[in-house]
Amino acid sequence: MVLRVGILGATGMVGQRFINLLDKHRWFSVEALLASGRSAGQYYKDATSWYLVEDMPDDIAGMEVQGMDPAITDNLDLVFSAIPSDIAERAEAEFAERVPVFSNTSTYRMHEDVPLIVPEINPNHLELLKIQKRERGWDGFLVTNPNCSTIGLVIPLKPILDNLGIEWVNVATMQAVSGAGYAGVPSMAILGNVIPFISGEENKMETESLKILGEFNGDEFNTANFTIFASCNRVMVRDGHTCSVFVRTRDDFDVDQLKEILRKFRGEPQRLSLPTAPKEPIVVMEDQNRPQPLFDRDIGGGMSISVGRIRKRMDKVMRFTCLSHNTIRGAAGASILNAELAYKKGLLRGR
Amino acid sequence: MVLRVGILGATGMVGQRFINLLDKHRWFSVEALLASGRSAGQYYKDATSWYLVEDMPDDIAGMEVQGMDPAITDNLDLVFSAIPSDIAERAEAEFAERVPVFSNTSTYRMHEDVPLIVPEINPNHLELLKIQKRERGWDGFLVTNPNCSTIGLVIPLKPILDNLGIEWVNVATMQAVSGAGYAGVPSMAILGNVIPFISGEENKMETESLKILGEFNGDEFNTANFTIFASCNRVMVRDGHTCSVFVRTRDDFDVDQLKEILRKFRGEPQRLSLPTAPKEPIVVMEDQNRPQPLFDRDIGGGMSISVGRIRKRMDKVMRFTCLSHNTIRGAAGASILNAELAYKKGLLRGR
Amino acid sequence: MVLRVGILGATGMVGQRFINLLDKHRWFSVEALLASGRSAGQYYKDATSWYLVEDMPDDIAGMEVQGMDPAITDNLDLVFSAIPSDIAERAEAEFAERVPVFSNTSTYRMHEDVPLIVPEINPNHLELLKIQKRERGWDGFLVTNPNCSTIGLVIPLKPILDNLGIEWVNVATMQAVSGAGYAGVPSMAILGNVIPFISGEENKMETESLKILGEFNGDEFNTANFTIFASCNRVMVRDGHTCSVFVRTRDDFDVDQLKEILRKFRGEPQRLSLPTAPKEPIVVMEDQNRPQPLFDRDIGGGMSISVGRIRKRMDKVMRFTCLSHNTIRGAAGASILNAELAYKKGLLRGR
Amino acid sequence: MVLRVGILGATGMVGQRFINLLDKHRWFSVEALLASGRSAGQYYKDATSWYLVEDMPDDIAGMEVQGMDPAITDNLDLVFSAIPSDIAERAEAEFAERVPVFSNTSTYRMHEDVPLIVPEINPNHLELLKIQKRERGWDGFLVTNPNCSTIGLVIPLKPILDNLGIEWVNVATMQAVSGAGYAGVPSMAILGNVIPFISGEENKMETESLKILGEFNGDEFNTANFTIFASCNRVMVRDGHTCSVFVRTRDDFDVDQLKEILRKFRGEPQRLSLPTAPKEPIVVMEDQNRPQPLFDRDIGGGMSISVGRIRKRMDKVMRFTCLSHNTIRGAAGASILNAELAYKKGLLRGR
Repeated sequence: MVLRVGILGATGMVGQRFINLLDKHRWFSVEALLASGRSAGQYYKDATSWYLVEDMPDDIAGMEVQGMDPAITDNLDLVFSAIPSDIAERAEAEFAERVPVFSNTSTYRMHEDVPLIVPEINPNHLELLKIQKRERGWDGFLVTNPNCSTIGLVIPLKPILDNLGIEWVNVATMQAVSGAGYAGVPSMAILGNVIPFISGEENKMETESLKILGEFNGDEFNTANFTIFASCNRVMVRDGHTCSVFVRTRDDFDVDQLKEILRKFRGEPQRLSLPTAPKEPIVVMEDQNRPQPLFDRDIGGGMSISVGRIRKRMDKVMRFTCLSHNTIRGAAGASILNAELAYKKGLLRGR
Repeated sequence: MVLRVGILGATGMVGQRFINLLDKHRWFSVEALLASGRSAGQYYKDATSWYLVEDMPDDIAGMEVQGMDPAITDNLDLVFSAIPSDIAERAEAEFAERVPVFSNTSTYRMHEDVPLIVPEINPNHLELLKIQKRERGWDGFLVTNPNCSTIGLVIPLKPILDNLGIEWVNVATMQAVSGAGYAGVPSMAILGNVIPFISGEENKMETESLKILGEFNGDEFNTANFTIFASCNRVMVRDGHTCSVFVRTRDDFDVDQLKEILRKFRGEPQRLSLPTAPKEPIVVMEDQNRPQPLFDRDIGGGMSISVGRIRKRMDKVMRFTCLSHNTIRGAAGASILNAELAYKKGLLRGR
Repeated sequence: MVLRVGILGATGMVGQRFINLLDKHRWFSVEALLASGRSAGQYYKDATSWYLVEDMPDDIAGMEVQGMDPAITDNLDLVFSAIPSDIAERAEAEFAERVPVFSNTSTYRMHEDVPLIVPEINPNHLELLKIQKRERGWDGFLVTNPNCSTIGLVIPLKPILDNLGIEWVNVATMQAVSGAGYAGVPSMAILGNVIPFISGEENKMETESLKILGEFNGDEFNTANFTIFASCNRVMVRDGHTCSVFVRTRDDFDVDQLKEILRKFRGEPQRLSLPTAPKEPIVVMEDQNRPQPLFDRDIGGGMSISVGRIRKRMDKVMRFTCLSHNTIRGAAGASILNAELAYKKGLLRGR
Repeated sequence: MVLRVGILGATGMVGQRFINLLDKHRWFSVEALLASGRSAGQYYKDATSWYLVEDMPDDIAGMEVQGMDPAITDNLDLVFSAIPSDIAERAEAEFAERVPVFSNTSTYRMHEDVPLIVPEINPNHLELLKIQKRERGWDGFLVTNPNCSTIGLVIPLKPILDNLGIEWVNVATMQAVSGAGYAGVPSMAILGNVIPFISGEENKMETESLKILGEFNGDEFNTANFTIFASCNRVMVRDGHTCSVFVRTRDDFDVDQLKEILRKFRGEPQRLSLPTAPKEPIVVMEDQNRPQPLFDRDIGGGMSISVGRIRKRMDKVMRFTCLSHNTIRGAAGASILNAELAYKKGLLRGR
């Protein structure tokens, strides 16, 4: 059975990536494209400035964009959301009253009863949905995925935390312009330049990571107990966020052991063979020139995190460089993997 | 009196910057342009691909490039060196036998009897020259300045070390392509990309900084006693190295106090009003978008370090972003400031 | 005597360039900064995102931005305009009723009674102001300058037209992103790309050029009698429009003669030594690699047109590459030069 | 039957593209990787800096690179050549003595007895091989394909020439950096810049095109009889050459007719369904923003020419913008298509 999917914010850059990744998906079929009033009523191909290098699927091109009316959910089994955070508070709640919503938007991520999921890390946090249901009384539910800069960091941190413990993390990012949306970074701002600030980004990395790495026993939620300190920079790269990461662990390690820990890491998506799951969540690179966004962002279909330049300089302190595709693993792909996990866990069904 | 200057490696990118910065210098007059055999005998304007946006000085354009023959020093009072490190070992020694040499090349920086000077930080390390003279028996001497990525870091670290003490430093760099020389970074390598590795660079930052911040009492040399851990990245910027820096201090601080410490920092070059000295070695920026290489690299004539995004996240741990012009403060300007310091200290004289 | 100047649209990119170029101007002093409602009432330094690499003048930083109220002209002797074309029709007319207006906006350029001036080419077109005054009854007047892509073409065409005649011109442009305004070209659109279309640009080049090169005998106006065919492209350059130009002349020529014609070209601004006039309106380059926007856009203070790669392939057909600084000679500098010409012609006076 | 293929210059950028395009080819199997002495003896994966975003095929990675010894041809049925032009004169002749050689190098292109083939345009020029055989006495033969900038122009010119006649062509190119080889364009040269010169390129476009469009009746060769005037520029694009083209035809046309002529164009590769042939040699685009290298270079597997911005401004004069992938249709793909044509014509066989 194929579930019927709607995309909120279908014309934006992340919306386009949802369409691209859901094309020929085994479980989900895009049945509704929803966007703000201006686009509603137009064919999708006329309503959007398609920015992806990959072609727009033909069947999508001729679909009519609809306004964001929750009544549409009568014909939908779930909804993906890529709408701006300022309108998400109301809109996502209206949809979640009726159907499961998988959101890439930041608005609800840090709410106590909203799961912030990375399926390789904290699939059991989906149990927060019981609390969510009790407190909000929704027929549907709302599951979120983290910020594009958070996810590339938190996936390599997971096996390190589990195996070695973590005392602190310092991370400097070099983020792609697509992370700011199509018109987010003027060429006048970034051509031959670095911008050492991205509004709200450092806070997201520092707080979301600890929620994701936190523990939930069904009753009580404990965020992870270490400090992340982030410095977020914009660089002239199209897609792919690169991070220089410094970590102090609780236990000492050697570099070969650390590489092994990262290489062997697998999670629920791999065990369940979810359609969008990469075989290796973390790809360890030995070439000292890698990872590079231009060459490595698409590894694992854009769902793997590439980790290289692993170095130890003193006891318990490591440095590595990690790279993630910010609109795939960092946005649409993350939401889809969450929905695939929910499906396998029996939380989704056709109506 | 004006001292007669020769430039070793005059046709390269740093050589060009020497020429640009020495144009109309009050104390130094460029009298000899030296380069490898191929260029020798040509007019400078024909021997070089002038890469600077600033114009080539007219009097330099018509000078003849000479081969690197130490006999030339008969008519010179000092020499600046910007030659490749593989030929510097022999060539710089040959010149230092005869005249003072101020070198931007890495070869001799870490030699025990060679001063590695940043005039705002360790002017007294010039006293190492006594040991150098004793051991090498040169008539001239050799003074070096640090790597382009080191200098932007070590200047803000100095007042922090003096006022608060330092336990460790983690630093991620985003370095300009000019740091690799004119043909060092192919456009195919960097267009829309980040390269997370620069050969030898991390080691230079980690070791040179500790020598510069070390103490010399005339007899004994003690390198600074903390650890620097560097992650060096190349980005698509023409000039200007940006660093995200994390520092753990020995004493706690508040952010306003820290800004004050950085703002007030002055050194010998400021006290002596050296011609190339910036009024403020460190310019503290409050705008959260700054510093940016495109806009801020030329502050203080390219000799100031811009520091912004100062933040504290836990006790004794700070984060800031610093920016330096890599071919001015990070190369030619650094050598010239060293020579100016030496001149004021009476170490240079016309013959 | 110094004339009091207002700038309409003072916060935009061309407005900033007006401020930069009028700083310390011998004849004109900026007394009023006018902008749309949102900015009015703020200090200029708070109301603008200063995009220029050159510093904001201190005296301007603390001036208050005013709304675009024509009553302000009571204290002004002339006004420069850099407002969007959609609001210019009404706003520029309201100001021109009261004071002389020198506009960089396209709205009125092709109106029959509005001079479209390049002082080196058609200073006598200022006599159209008599007709303008008769028809519009304004106390002030309105003078325009051409589009940023037109001016780099039309200046070299002038001596060619005068000396050799022109049958047709084909021109392909490679235009800088600053031509579209600060946020005009998203980095997502242009990073590693060429955009082969700029709205309205080809038509402007094809029509404005012929008006500028046209003849006016005091009564009758004849536009120039040949055809320009333009292909306008956007490339990833910050400032500086480059054009590949093909021209078929009426008379044959040889290349040395052509270079001489271009080199010798002078106009009223040079004869009158206007403050903003470059010594050489056209700089002919022999190096086959030039002109390049990065290195040559600032020649003559950004007011010279660089011409290189001059070649002849068949009788009467030439090719050359020309370059102009699009926000100086192509915008604010052009308006200022027009005002300087008007001043010397006695059309401006203090009140 | 699968023919055994060797690649001369296998480690360079075009060599890599040969390997990429021949991976899983139906008729050709890469059996030998040949390169200059330095690489010989190494595994291919160690001998090359793989620059393509596409992965290196596994079977190639482990092959040993061999020196360029013609004796190797004993086990080969044909050879592709992507060696530098300075060594090609001797090396390609030595190989062509023994086996068919399909060369992307410029050295022999304009030799009278060497076919310069674009299969859609002049497949019958292969008959020049009879003359070549007679004159050179080779057991093999040598077929060339044009320069990367020539091919994007000459394909749209072919149907225009056949249907309307051509009087002259003016063309301005905006060429990608990959056209100069991996290290050909330093980032310092092109970052934020345009370079209005590419050595030898204009001459190639102007002469090769006329040979390709020329007529050969088995005895006599007549080059096409019109003039091309080219202006070649380098821009900051990774792959994909864009051209602004102006053409004066002999007969008049209207724009719809012209689009139809371009759209309908097919050649031998389409009729023979050659494996590398695009369905449409020319893709006509109606969107005024297209073609753009970032989005359109890969159409038809990088073998189609995209043509847009078709405009007419006066009788018999058109303008269009065309785009081609310079390392696929402009290099390796062109050679492979030539070999496929030769195979279908019975000129190749296994031994």
